[in-house]
Amino acid sequence: MDLSSLIQKNNTKIVFIILDGVGGLPIDGKTELERANKPNLDSLARVSACGLHIPVDYGITPGSGPGHFGVFGYDPLKYEIGRGVLEALGVDIELQKTDVAIRCNYATKKDGLIVDRRAGRISTEKNIELTKRLSENIDEIDGVKIILKPGKEHRFCLVMRFKKEITEKHAMVKDTDPQKEGKPPFEPTPLNEESLEVSEIAKKFIRKAEEILKNEEKANYVLLRGFSALPDIPSFEQKYGLKACSIAVYPMYRGITKLLGMDTIPVQGDIKEEVEILKKVYKDYDFIFLHVKKIDSFGEDGNFEGKVKKIEEFDSFLPEILSLNPDALVITGDHSTPCLLKTHSWHPVPLLIKSPYVLGGTVNSFTERECLKGEIGIIRSVSIMPLVLANTLRLRKFGA
Amino acid sequence: MDLSSLIQKNNTKIVFIILDGVGGLPIDGKTELERANKPNLDSLARVSACGLHIPVDYGITPGSGPGHFGVFGYDPLKYEIGRGVLEALGVDIELQKTDVAIRCNYATKKDGLIVDRRAGRISTEKNIELTKRLSENIDEIDGVKIILKPGKEHRFCLVMRFKKEITEKHAMVKDTDPQKEGKPPFEPTPLNEESLEVSEIAKKFIRKAEEILKNEEKANYVLLRGFSALPDIPSFEQKYGLKACSIAVYPMYRGITKLLGMDTIPVQGDIKEEVEILKKVYKDYDFIFLHVKKIDSFGEDGNFEGKVKKIEEFDSFLPEILSLNPDALVITGDHSTPCLLKTHSWHPVPLLIKSPYVLGGTVNSFTERECLKGEIGIIRSVSIMPLVLANTLRLRKFGA
Repeated sequence: MDLSSLIQKNNTKIVFIILDGVGGLPIDGKTELERANKPNLDSLARVSACGLHIPVDYGITPGSGPGHFGVFGYDPLKYEIGRGVLEALGVDIELQKTDVAIRCNYATKKDGLIVDRRAGRISTEKNIELTKRLSENIDEIDGVKIILKPGKEHRFCLVMRFKKEITEKHAMVKDTDPQKEGKPPFEPTPLNEESLEVSEIAKKFIRKAEEILKNEEKANYVLLRGFSALPDIPSFEQKYGLKACSIAVYPMYRGITKLLGMDTIPVQGDIKEEVEILKKVYKDYDFIFLHVKKIDSFGEDGNFEGKVKKIEEFDSFLPEILSLNPDALVITGDHSTPCLLKTHSWHPVPLLIKSPYVLGGTVNSFTERECLKGEIGIIRSVSIMPLVLANTLRLRKFGA
Repeated sequence: MDLSSLIQKNNTKIVFIILDGVGGLPIDGKTELERANKPNLDSLARVSACGLHIPVDYGITPGSGPGHFGVFGYDPLKYEIGRGVLEALGVDIELQKTDVAIRCNYATKKDGLIVDRRAGRISTEKNIELTKRLSENIDEIDGVKIILKPGKEHRFCLVMRFKKEITEKHAMVKDTDPQKEGKPPFEPTPLNEESLEVSEIAKKFIRKAEEILKNEEKANYVLLRGFSALPDIPSFEQKYGLKACSIAVYPMYRGITKLLGMDTIPVQGDIKEEVEILKKVYKDYDFIFLHVKKIDSFGEDGNFEGKVKKIEEFDSFLPEILSLNPDALVITGDHSTPCLLKTHSWHPVPLLIKSPYVLGGTVNSFTERECLKGEIGIIRSVSIMPLVLANTLRLRKFGA
């Protein structure tokens, strides 16, 4: 279904809230959403269209990239975002169309073999120091600018900035990580003709880094993975005719939405500050994406009480959001992160759409089990955006 | 899934009822179906397989063509019915495989510009008079027969009847309607080599019509849109092995079913007369389609009370229909037409299938919200026909 031929513009406003990793599983009989005291969210669910969505496919656990692509209506099986790109977005590098992005590990090499793929998980402080040293000594290779930025523990990001436009083909270079300790690293091998140049620069980078790091006890080597370029992807405005912005604390989510051409508004703080910005920019956009990260973080930590409290905190700000009276309000997650699993999971994610054009009255609260009774049913995440556009009367009739 | 390889014939009978636009939305808490007092339909729902169907896709509002194609199991994304064809069917022109059908507007042209695309919405009576005048003066162009028939207000239909078979390629000519007032009309431009002939005849038709209408104050010009030919589509009998007929008051629905090779039985009157004909022809067909139009009409008017009353009227005839004891009885709509929206909508449509092979006992009444609890769930409209064939034991096992 080619939606673009049906798009019509109007003055409606859409607020689209992702509670990252909100879906959960029961511990002592109740899920995080079932345990949370969230009167506002539950009242809203009672008058909304509810259901659940499957981010990628049945049984498939999505990463953050596919999770967000799906809810924004970009089929995550069609639009794959490279791991290097995702890493770069996560450390707040503003990627350009001339860039190849690579995620790197500090590692320990001995007698030609990788004996620790994570260099004993060195501290982030040590990482910052080492990455600064590499940066100061490697400014460019073969005329290509080298940009380095530390991540957490042993992780850092390498961006090669060319003077020409880069496509995904240019970046098709094999990972150097042997995946198992006690094996030699791979050479950066080009997987096609176009990627020869990138593989050569990668080789030279590894040699230079090895030389600079040679006296380090643990972090004396670097492993390169996920060579990738910005995907060729239609912008949100091209696809839907929506002027969109994103409000997110974490760089990765700002990065993903920037890929889609949204204006991204940096926020310090948490839900309170995000809602303040929402109110400030509300008049300027058709579509405002608000991302609440910490719910997922507590899920990843297996901190049930923390996740419940964060859901309750969001609930306390809901009346303020509702007072804006958007034409459509969407609340869901990009995936589930049950505390029971301490990681993303494949479980369908509760979904709520409020508009004047819903049945409502089918669920009692915003939980996994109640949303099963909702009028939306269980849908693929890519169907959310067509529903939201329909609910704001932004889609013309199909056929006569 | 290629159903045709599984089809087996038997003596079962299917009655398939479309309550056009039956799905609705709550006004003062209840939908049209929820407000209606319809004891027979509700009793039937309690012992039937219930669910909802999505005509085209999530969020997509279907026109009447896609809506009906879907419930008959023809994927509306694959089989698109041209607007000219639909218009011709709507004014009861019996289209042939040698025809190009075009929907036309009377318009006002001044100094080379279209100043009113609808000629001030002239009356239907005036339209009839003008179309008669055009017909009497334009019998054929370049040996191609010209058939004209008035529609409502400023609309009329033009059919070019060739002496050769016409495909959709022959009809690919650009609309002449500039879509905005104050602009000159477009010439009928061929969009490929095969459509050159049709575009030339269209040009001559426009010149002739302009000459004939030159003294008219408002309707002094004609705009041509939706050039189209009959789609190449397998018949209902080819597809399902069903000898089928359709009972419909409105020409468009007879036309759509005629496209699918059904026998079409014209009816004057409304539900009462339709049910009488159903009983009369029941023994002659495997599949009888009965179309109730007025429910949609009241929806389009936003007449909640009228739509409710019409549903209740249908309910009163249900015992008569049930007394035929068909092997499968289907009751659904081709799309929703909520009075709240006064137009077709994207909302899933309540669906009921009665046969000896259903679970039943899952819903209390035939409404949008109750059907959510049904054993069918929410399905794409194209899945209805396979279910109906299965419920009449007309599908063989797939695989060993």
